[in-house]
Amino acid sequence: MTEPFRIAIAGLGTVGGGVARMLRENASLIEQRCGRPVVLAAYAARSLGKVDQADLAGAQRVSDALELASLPQIDAVAELIGGADGVALELTSRALAAGRSVVSANKAMIANHGADLARLAQDHGVALVFEAAVAGGIPVLKIVREALAGNRILSLRGILNGTCNYILTRMETAGLSFEAALGEAQALGYAEADPSADIDGLDAAHKLAILSALAFGFAPDLAGVARRGLRGLRPEDFRFAADRGYRIKLIGAASYGSAGLDQWVQPCLVPADSPLAQAAGVLNAIQIEGNAVGPLFLSGRGAGAEATASAVLGDLTDLARGAVSDPFSVMATALAPACPWPPERQDGRWYLRLLVQDGAGALAAITGAFAVESVSIETVRQDAKADANGYVFVYLTTHLTNKAAFQAVIDRLSRLSCVHEPPFTLRIDAASSSKGE
Amino acid sequence: MTEPFRIAIAGLGTVGGGVARMLRENASLIEQRCGRPVVLAAYAARSLGKVDQADLAGAQRVSDALELASLPQIDAVAELIGGADGVALELTSRALAAGRSVVSANKAMIANHGADLARLAQDHGVALVFEAAVAGGIPVLKIVREALAGNRILSLRGILNGTCNYILTRMETAGLSFEAALGEAQALGYAEADPSADIDGLDAAHKLAILSALAFGFAPDLAGVARRGLRGLRPEDFRFAADRGYRIKLIGAASYGSAGLDQWVQPCLVPADSPLAQAAGVLNAIQIEGNAVGPLFLSGRGAGAEATASAVLGDLTDLARGAVSDPFSVMATALAPACPWPPERQDGRWYLRLLVQDGAGALAAITGAFAVESVSIETVRQDAKADANGYVFVYLTTHLTNKAAFQAVIDRLSRLSCVHEPPFTLRIDAASSSKGE
Repeated sequence: MTEPFRIAIAGLGTVGGGVARMLRENASLIEQRCGRPVVLAAYAARSLGKVDQADLAGAQRVSDALELASLPQIDAVAELIGGADGVALELTSRALAAGRSVVSANKAMIANHGADLARLAQDHGVALVFEAAVAGGIPVLKIVREALAGNRILSLRGILNGTCNYILTRMETAGLSFEAALGEAQALGYAEADPSADIDGLDAAHKLAILSALAFGFAPDLAGVARRGLRGLRPEDFRFAADRGYRIKLIGAASYGSAGLDQWVQPCLVPADSPLAQAAGVLNAIQIEGNAVGPLFLSGRGAGAEATASAVLGDLTDLARGAVSDPFSVMATALAPACPWPPERQDGRWYLRLLVQDGAGALAAITGAFAVESVSIETVRQDAKADANGYVFVYLTTHLTNKAAFQAVIDRLSRLSCVHEPPFTLRIDAASSSKGE
Repeated sequence: MTEPFRIAIAGLGTVGGGVARMLRENASLIEQRCGRPVVLAAYAARSLGKVDQADLAGAQRVSDALELASLPQIDAVAELIGGADGVALELTSRALAAGRSVVSANKAMIANHGADLARLAQDHGVALVFEAAVAGGIPVLKIVREALAGNRILSLRGILNGTCNYILTRMETAGLSFEAALGEAQALGYAEADPSADIDGLDAAHKLAILSALAFGFAPDLAGVARRGLRGLRPEDFRFAADRGYRIKLIGAASYGSAGLDQWVQPCLVPADSPLAQAAGVLNAIQIEGNAVGPLFLSGRGAGAEATASAVLGDLTDLARGAVSDPFSVMATALAPACPWPPERQDGRWYLRLLVQDGAGALAAITGAFAVESVSIETVRQDAKADANGYVFVYLTTHLTNKAAFQAVIDRLSRLSCVHEPPFTLRIDAASSSKGE
């Protein structure tokens, strides 16, 4: 087994450039560990702006990425182009069909087409792996698929988007508005010019759908992820949260139970002393609960050239060693469609912020809406001073309640004449508080 | 590949009983994930007190564990007996020589004989895996060996002994003496009647030696682990630490640099807001720094029937799937002996507690000892009130200093007439503060 393991890279942007660099920098270590060299044999790239020429020495450049699917003597193709469809999907499909294993960092493609691609890989007896698609350098897919293979996974929850976590951290620690924190993230290169995939939770939903497919043995069900992003958050929410011992984090969570697969991405109040709350800035963090391992917590860099390259290289070295498992833990042909957990059966605790016309009877009307629906209030707080127009923020938290009942309260509140804006709500995710002690 | 994967378990104590139970409880999930059933075919046990008979249904009992090495139709032997030598070592050696893969939870055996056993496994073309030997349910060996195979590992540091972490947590949060906290740990079953392997750091040293062998590609070098345990710690140390923003944790750390392999286990002051400081009670936690992934942090249950069973089952399912890598990341024949980092070249920051005869000139004599050796003091604090005998505690911390110079200071302090007891010292492990942001 001293024959080199020959790879082709499609896309030499941040991630691809990082892979080429680390492949050269750590070449002798990688060879020792795999028992054979892992070499970059070919690549396709629109631009080589981010790449040191020395990292490409001896590799063949092809002009069309699709050519990489059928180049002779290539053992694996690393698809680092991105995008749910287009060239990335075409290349991956063709490479698998041509009997080449594929390593991908493409969360959108795997979340949307993962089950089909897994079947294609199975049909052709090759591997499809995508550690870099979820949580950057944190090897959570390998952990769920292999290390925890003896566990029934009970739940997963995580901070899966570093851009959002940066924005939330800055809103919390510097008191910035959402817009200011987003602008800062853009200036630092953490957020894109069109930030919607990040801030609306789509990126986190892609990752959650992949993670939960692996953990629960279903085809990725992106449509089944109930999703809300960061828009609408105000500094007042962070102040209230801090006063009550919480931080606000964009949490992606999945669990599987009698009513089906429950998957959601939304900003939540999490206990400030919980492990997930400790992940600041662009870090990612994940908490997994298994019926044998108990709670397991992981955190690390969720993005960036080197951290993502680490995940791609982990996949490549597995392939070079001949260690391959099914992309989604179980055989692709055994991947069932998920049955989504009905939203009305989701119980939870909630935080509400209302903009209220200050006046006699306002609080009575608000608390009355809860009473009628039998939703139990934990705390109510009203800002001390009304603004120039006589409006004041009122904050409430509930005890554990059924989501349908809570929605009925929201509907009632929205119709109250003293409530000026649609109620703003956040889930209180107390399950994040498990420290496994 | 639908032929069952047949395992034999030697030892049905806490861990073995947990493996048998989870193997049955999660049988259909495990079969789905491995593409074949994983069945308990045979076992040897002195006592079955902790095992449900149903977990053993259909399995053959043998009276002598060594028989399991050569039973026909066994694919892998799980050695869950424990002990560095004796039956465990004999069984493991015989099973490997008979062409059976071995899964072991035995840190003492692997730390002492790991390189020899790895060579034996390599010679006979079988696997030797021991995820459960380090950090219980946290799959840190798989992560280092496989997920981070594309990284040069820069450093490892972790809380590797839950018993010690429980004792330290109780000394910190309840102000208990060492003896009282140890007694509590014994009453709860966290510490054994003879607790020395835990509290003197030997257990953590076993784990560190295994982890660092995997990370740096050396044969485990237990003798090269500089080791100190918890004896001598007083509640006063925790109070001083808390006042200065630290917690006290038993840290095992390893790094490899120009001067060799640096491995130590000792109680340290770590910044209270660092990830390692968050691990309370019996949890284990590990921070790994790789040149691609950056800092990666893991925490979870380091002991207990189910968590340890999770690790054993992860190894067994890997074997059932046919995924095998070299026990210590590189080929056993390539495992070099480590060259230990000379202690005199270890730089660090230090905390000292001195019991001093209160009187004019005492502080001058103490600080003078530092001045003569050019060791820079960061803080000095003296307790407000002397005890009935006129003794008072003096606490100092140093800036970064060379260990040899620091040792010279200690020697000088020990000779001062005003210093009553040998100085008590702790390392200040500021490297734990890296949050990877």
